[in-house]
Amino acid sequence: MAEELTGNVLVAQSGGPTAVINASLAGVIEESLNHGCIEEIYGGLNGVLGILQERFIDLAEEPQQAIRGLRFTPASALGTCRFKLRKDADLHRVVEVFKAHNIRYFFYIGGNDSQDTADRISKLAAAEGWEMRVIGIPKTVDNDLTVTDHTPGYGSVIKHVATTVRELACDAEAMGQHDLVYILEVMGRSAGWIAAGASLAKRRDHPEDPPHLVYLPEVPFDLNKFLDDITEVLKQQKYCLIVVGEGLVDGNGNYVATADGSSDSFGHSQLGGAGDYLKSLIDQHFSGVKTRSFRPGHSQRAAAANASLTDVNEAYLAGQAAVRAALNGETDKMVTLFRGDGDAYTCETSLADLSEVANGVKHLPANWINEDGTSLSYQFVKYASPLIQGEVDIPHEHGLPQFVKLGKVSVAPLLQPYEVS
Amino acid sequence: MAEELTGNVLVAQSGGPTAVINASLAGVIEESLNHGCIEEIYGGLNGVLGILQERFIDLAEEPQQAIRGLRFTPASALGTCRFKLRKDADLHRVVEVFKAHNIRYFFYIGGNDSQDTADRISKLAAAEGWEMRVIGIPKTVDNDLTVTDHTPGYGSVIKHVATTVRELACDAEAMGQHDLVYILEVMGRSAGWIAAGASLAKRRDHPEDPPHLVYLPEVPFDLNKFLDDITEVLKQQKYCLIVVGEGLVDGNGNYVATADGSSDSFGHSQLGGAGDYLKSLIDQHFSGVKTRSFRPGHSQRAAAANASLTDVNEAYLAGQAAVRAALNGETDKMVTLFRGDGDAYTCETSLADLSEVANGVKHLPANWINEDGTSLSYQFVKYASPLIQGEVDIPHEHGLPQFVKLGKVSVAPLLQPYEVS
Repeated sequence: MAEELTGNVLVAQSGGPTAVINASLAGVIEESLNHGCIEEIYGGLNGVLGILQERFIDLAEEPQQAIRGLRFTPASALGTCRFKLRKDADLHRVVEVFKAHNIRYFFYIGGNDSQDTADRISKLAAAEGWEMRVIGIPKTVDNDLTVTDHTPGYGSVIKHVATTVRELACDAEAMGQHDLVYILEVMGRSAGWIAAGASLAKRRDHPEDPPHLVYLPEVPFDLNKFLDDITEVLKQQKYCLIVVGEGLVDGNGNYVATADGSSDSFGHSQLGGAGDYLKSLIDQHFSGVKTRSFRPGHSQRAAAANASLTDVNEAYLAGQAAVRAALNGETDKMVTLFRGDGDAYTCETSLADLSEVANGVKHLPANWINEDGTSLSYQFVKYASPLIQGEVDIPHEHGLPQFVKLGKVSVAPLLQPYEVS
Repeated sequence: MAEELTGNVLVAQSGGPTAVINASLAGVIEESLNHGCIEEIYGGLNGVLGILQERFIDLAEEPQQAIRGLRFTPASALGTCRFKLRKDADLHRVVEVFKAHNIRYFFYIGGNDSQDTADRISKLAAAEGWEMRVIGIPKTVDNDLTVTDHTPGYGSVIKHVATTVRELACDAEAMGQHDLVYILEVMGRSAGWIAAGASLAKRRDHPEDPPHLVYLPEVPFDLNKFLDDITEVLKQQKYCLIVVGEGLVDGNGNYVATADGSSDSFGHSQLGGAGDYLKSLIDQHFSGVKTRSFRPGHSQRAAAANASLTDVNEAYLAGQAAVRAALNGETDKMVTLFRGDGDAYTCETSLADLSEVANGVKHLPANWINEDGTSLSYQFVKYASPLIQGEVDIPHEHGLPQFVKLGKVSVAPLLQPYEVS
């Protein structure tokens, strides 16, 4: 056991929200309450932005019911930011704020950029002789963090997307018309992890199940192959359900659709996102094919109704593990998830250096993409399937999910205001 | 009690699917099994199209588990069609098919057009001396059927849309940035019923709750007012969440967006649907405002995960009631839903003439739209709120909803093939 460090906890969230990032927050809060050396539990509003501006709330003041409710409330209850600490002055200010509020434990829930921020804060605090422990907690729907087997947030978004594919399949099937194409555009930026996850909708030994074609950002888009792919599916199936990652690129690595109204390398005009773009190609090259394109956008990452219980539990576990690691003397680390070797899926936590996480991107393994470029191998299914198991029971009031809003009892600022540029 | 008419049941589904149209089918099947004078229970595939082509399945052959599963399986298990009986020859063929298969009870689950079809079939059968009973069962997410208080399918789609607004609200709130606009485009064609339903996401006595602005097809779109509306919301709120009906029209009654790339009456280029159109207007007229537009499309009407238990139960009840009415000697009627007078919501069934239903459209009452044109009155909330109560527990397998596919045991055709033109 490390030497006991008495003081306050600060926890903050950063980057794009997920369905389970608040479960990690709940894990941090509830575990912190277990340890006598932790005096106050503060939440920083809007990530580092709120830290620079001393916008803290007292999380111990929140009703237990609210903390429990965080487990099924999507997005970030503390608010997030996309702000990057750019100047030395910013970093210095953060450490000054920590000193003023006796912050000895800092937990930062976020993706690559956030872990990089945590790393820099941790190193500057050490350099300035402020003893504290900094632990990162992973989150991102994009699943592109290195070192960890998978990232909290990913299981829920792919459970939702695969559920949507199943629902749309019922719809398309019912329409009873040949030459119908449904296109579902999903998030994931330059990574195909989410688009790949949609393929979980396919039942094993049912090759006819949708999605029939998955277009991944990892596979450069080829117009002729695309037209051939669709022709082939419509020969065999009554309809074709396509899933496309928003970050689909052409052979030169440029996004096929940027929603800015410009033309692509094929000279086709762009109508919006990648899904609308594929729709326009089909409309231009096929006659008699009815095409519909759907773009649920951010509602994917907020879709608590279809969240994965496994994901929620692991997000909570990651929050708990961060607190335990810090009390154990660890610092400048991020919690990682790894799976056991056995046949049955098990998930445990470990730690990795923040600096190791900050600078890498985990790609979808090339050999998990089948040779056709539009479907995923069994290895992928084996990897992703355990992450979507279990459903979350969300309390409803008047027929709608009763998400939690924190009371947000402010902590009085102790320093002069700071100008954020 | 009417004279007993012994023979077979034919049930079919038509028009766009909903989350609960299969619950009505289950109601028809399970109630039919209770009556000795009903010999066979046939399902017609793809609406009248399948009737013309004698594509029937034997529903009594389906496992009970499958019929039970219909209650939570979205879309139309029998398949639908948009085919209209145009020629006298078609109508005559339908009656010929009925005679060949001794169809004495015909139940048609659908919207206006389908009820019109049922009406014409019923009248021709009577004219040709074929004794039978024809009962329509209402369905449409658009909620625009007359005579009935509301339509099965509507409660589920607005529960889903209002849930999505709540989820997106968490997401937008978390982003912690001023001048953020989220736009959610919803279905409903020329009727604002679904867009209006999104306003249920607002908690009572929380005027700050989203949706902040609802643009209904019933209110002609005015650019200047739109820009003022947004300016006003962004003055008071951190973000602005807009819901827009896909059928939004300009002052001349033309759709503001037709996704065909043409220009509108303001000379703005069109980028897609109504939501993308509003996004383009904001991007052109505001600087520093970040806008995101979401178009979930058909996934709304198939969103079984957020279906309303009240809606499922009423859809089932409508199916049951149709069978009971037919056995009671009724024909050429559609089942309607009406609500009791008491304070607590109750729903019962009644009957209306098919001809009365077929030619009307139920509009959103003008006095349920507030004077601002972008919000709904308490009367609307009082009307719609009971329809979204209760959640449906969908069995999951391997982490995904286990929707039912019917085994579809074919009934042998008895007539010569018929050419559908």
